Amino acid sequence: MKYEKNDPVRLSEDGTAVEIIDQTLLPNMFKIKRLHNADEICSAIQLLEVRGAPCIGICAAYGIYICALKISAENESEFFVQLEKCAEQIGSARPTAVNLSLAVKKMLRRAKLCKGRTRDEMMAALKDEAETIHSEDIETCHIISEFGLTLMKDGDSVLTHCNAGALATSRYGTGLGTLLLGAERGYNFHAYVDETRPLLQGARLTSYELSNAGIDTTLICDNMASYVMSKGLIDACFVGCDRVAANGDTANKIGTSGVAVLAKHYGIPFYVFCPFTTIDTECKTGEDIVIEMRDGDEIKKMYFEKPVAPENVKCLNPAFDVTPAELITAIVTEKGIFYPPYDFSEK
Amino acid sequence: MKYEKNDPVRLSEDGTAVEIIDQTLLPNMFKIKRLHNADEICSAIQLLEVRGAPCIGICAAYGIYICALKISAENESEFFVQLEKCAEQIGSARPTAVNLSLAVKKMLRRAKLCKGRTRDEMMAALKDEAETIHSEDIETCHIISEFGLTLMKDGDSVLTHCNAGALATSRYGTGLGTLLLGAERGYNFHAYVDETRPLLQGARLTSYELSNAGIDTTLICDNMASYVMSKGLIDACFVGCDRVAANGDTANKIGTSGVAVLAKHYGIPFYVFCPFTTIDTECKTGEDIVIEMRDGDEIKKMYFEKPVAPENVKCLNPAFDVTPAELITAIVTEKGIFYPPYDFSEK
Repeated sequence: MKYEKNDPVRLSEDGTAVEIIDQTLLPNMFKIKRLHNADEICSAIQLLEVRGAPCIGICAAYGIYICALKISAENESEFFVQLEKCAEQIGSARPTAVNLSLAVKKMLRRAKLCKGRTRDEMMAALKDEAETIHSEDIETCHIISEFGLTLMKDGDSVLTHCNAGALATSRYGTGLGTLLLGAERGYNFHAYVDETRPLLQGARLTSYELSNAGIDTTLICDNMASYVMSKGLIDACFVGCDRVAANGDTANKIGTSGVAVLAKHYGIPFYVFCPFTTIDTECKTGEDIVIEMRDGDEIKKMYFEKPVAPENVKCLNPAFDVTPAELITAIVTEKGIFYPPYDFSEK
Repeated sequence: MKYEKNDPVRLSEDGTAVEIIDQTLLPNMFKIKRLHNADEICSAIQLLEVRGAPCIGICAAYGIYICALKISAENESEFFVQLEKCAEQIGSARPTAVNLSLAVKKMLRRAKLCKGRTRDEMMAALKDEAETIHSEDIETCHIISEFGLTLMKDGDSVLTHCNAGALATSRYGTGLGTLLLGAERGYNFHAYVDETRPLLQGARLTSYELSNAGIDTTLICDNMASYVMSKGLIDACFVGCDRVAANGDTANKIGTSGVAVLAKHYGIPFYVFCPFTTIDTECKTGEDIVIEMRDGDEIKKMYFEKPVAPENVKCLNPAFDVTPAELITAIVTEKGIFYPPYDFSEK
């Protein structure tokens, strides 16, 4: 298939490596990294050098293809032992996004359909499967973005969390696809971008993608979402997701559920964007979704490159916000504990 | 008055400077900084070297005293012109916390009561006024903490936002006073500490204070508050505040209103702690409170010292959370837009 310069994942021209944009270096450096084997692929997924649920699925598919290419086996059954071993390793790199395990399953199924064929035929089929997963994602994101546009009107302002743009998928993206497609068509959308701690995918990636696309973009800290909603600055919330349970419960980047609670409180629609394959009928509810726990040093040590956002991106930085009295259980002072309804006008 | 080593603000021993713990260097370095004039005091307040609503009030009071000491004036009326000029400068260093303007008003009122007295008498009165503001805050925080303990039971787990501990006030603190006083009395409290972007007062100061006091402390990113609440890990939310309107609307560190919305959603009590003077009857509602807007570089550039939390503090770092289906307006896929009630079990 034909690759574009900004594809976050692709097969190398010589067909022996997976190439990714190293997303840990953005927005300060745009660097392509080559991954040659299962260890390197797992490491890139675990370190979030390649990230975004659809994107790690595509990376895993190409990864299994290049691992298969390099398998040295005396017979087909030995080939399958090794193939399944690397599929198992890559498939368990991260647990939450369904796309990773789905891509691995698809690749293994295709390989099994080629049993009895020549090694060349097997390789051609695996390459085709990976490219199909990739091209279907491009097509899917495009359709999702068209649907998204039906939910918007020109001038709308959207709050985003994490990064569900082209870097997380392939071109367009899921959650950001509507904004990017709309920008191409001349819509004037505004985006408020949650920075998304601890790894700052919003600051480093979303504000980079959206401002590059000419969209009016304002970066905020995650804890400012309530402020911008309370000020009437947000018409809708757009997020991608990693896995949807059969009942609609949705796993996405930490903090997403908080944005949804806020959106409900302020009466703002909250939209989830995803390929239909992200819906995992094997999970009845969100309780069945495994949540990945990561190292606390990501919070304490801040080991990403500085600055953490494009130099010219707008920021909104209110130092305080106002909590409405109706949300306060009690106000504790040295004169006593006061309960609602509060009336201090004659204090 | 008698100072303690960890008082975040105090008069220097020779009585000519205000000494503060430079809070921008914590937790990596404990350094006392001396402030000699109105410019240095304003700069320290604006850069958050000294911070916390009660604490900047105390700093301003001592600041006006040392400025008054250094005024060279030929007569009393010239003295008052200069005193009011420096009071105006210090009083407008930051707009949101009521404590700053209150302290300035108190100092000016006391000075005016001394009209016609000797310069020495004036200075003694101003020193007394500043020390009274300081010692009253210590006493107030102690009483608030006692009230707070009546709201808790042993073993409770509290979510905090920003820093309302000893560093923000004088000893004990407001929002954290209950935890610190409880720790002295052998209660086993647990604290989940929002890191509080952009300037990380929770990570740098609260987790440092609470873990030093032997309290079981877990640091989280702000966007993880919804996760820990949803998991039943939080019994109450404790915050300080900068200004309370007559109707109870409360201004506090950005993100506080979001914590309150989450607490309401999850059915968790949300308590505000403050000296009674923080209630500003001149503000009818939160609409009347001026919210300080700060430089966007605080979000983009991250110019504090690393690491940003004590080395041994526990962290909880879930990479994802689950948004319940009831909070999702629609799920947008390439197969169409799905609305509640969601049922994908037969997809």
